[in-house]
Amino acid sequence: MNRGKFIVFEGGEGSGKSTILEMIYEYLIENNINCIKTREPGGIQISEDIRKIILDTKNTSMDGKTEALLYTAARRQHLVERVVPKLNDGVIVLCDRFIYSSLAYQGYARGIGMSDIYQINKFAVGEYMPDLNILFDVSPQIGLSRINKNKGREVNRLDLEKMDFHNKVREGYHKLYEGNKDKFIKIDAEKSIEEVFSEVKEIIINFIE
Amino acid sequence: MNRGKFIVFEGGEGSGKSTILEMIYEYLIENNINCIKTREPGGIQISEDIRKIILDTKNTSMDGKTEALLYTAARRQHLVERVVPKLNDGVIVLCDRFIYSSLAYQGYARGIGMSDIYQINKFAVGEYMPDLNILFDVSPQIGLSRINKNKGREVNRLDLEKMDFHNKVREGYHKLYEGNKDKFIKIDAEKSIEEVFSEVKEIIINFIE
Repeated sequence: MNRGKFIVFEGGEGSGKSTILEMIYEYLIENNINCIKTREPGGIQISEDIRKIILDTKNTSMDGKTEALLYTAARRQHLVERVVPKLNDGVIVLCDRFIYSSLAYQGYARGIGMSDIYQINKFAVGEYMPDLNILFDVSPQIGLSRINKNKGREVNRLDLEKMDFHNKVREGYHKLYEGNKDKFIKIDAEKSIEEVFSEVKEIIINFIE
Repeated sequence: MNRGKFIVFEGGEGSGKSTILEMIYEYLIENNINCIKTREPGGIQISEDIRKIILDTKNTSMDGKTEALLYTAARRQHLVERVVPKLNDGVIVLCDRFIYSSLAYQGYARGIGMSDIYQINKFAVGEYMPDLNILFDVSPQIGLSRINKNKGREVNRLDLEKMDFHNKVREGYHKLYEGNKDKFIKIDAEKSIEEVFSEVKEIIINFIE
């Protein structure tokens, strides 16, 4: 049996990637395509426990490299427990964020260095790099205003970071996209949700066929 | 001001390194030498939280690489919060286990690979590699029988591992010692506690003078 495709949705805060992922998942299921949707920590107990430490607003003294190592640990466990068994069964895995989030956020925006972050992630991920990354590109002004409208969402430590951090995240994603066009498709996520969905749907259908 | 010396006590279970570290610390304090003793997670809240996840006996499904990344994250935070400020103040830091524990346990005994474990640790530690590692060499038979006598100690997941794992840990330490004789001093930790203390005391006095 062929390994399933590992498709990752990437982008800044409020880019709409999670909404679109949900819509794509529903669409694929309705069309009898064997797929799962997931995101780190994905209900994996060890990864959930790690995530609690990262998002704990008390932990403001957390060093950037500590944070990067924790994200990488949570990634590894989620990958091994949830993603790999499905890929090995030939199932399509739709994942909300993966290795390029760490490169854009920790590597670039926090200034730890993309090549260092890549190295610890390569250790964690091994041969299970995404087959396709879809980058939802949105300006932080628009992205963050979308989030604020969504009152039901809990505020966590990352939301409190300043606007220039989000601008750097976007810049980081652009650099990754420019350097890895074979692994990325970039979407203008400032368009309407219907337009973005239609575009992503076509990309994915073409990719998995 | 000169940076303080960073001296690490390494060895398998029941090697006596923690007892000797305590005795050396008392001796240095009595002789008015400015030093601290520490071990990971060392009361650093973030590192304590990480350690809880690693030692949770429920987490038997933890992947070896996840564990290695968690140890490295706890190490980073302990280093940044506790060790580096003291070294920068010219204080001698006596530390119970550091990077070579990960190389022997995860890298070698668990078979993840020493060079991979070295890379993620190098990311975490940067320029703060130990100035001296003292290896307390003991056979697992003797080491583990010492631990079993010590009834007050809580049993954790690591204690449940089998004897051949501890034999591999020792083998890993030997390889590290052979390849890094400039960074290690090896002690026969099967000798009496008085003999070992006297030997280590002399080594440290010579090293810090």
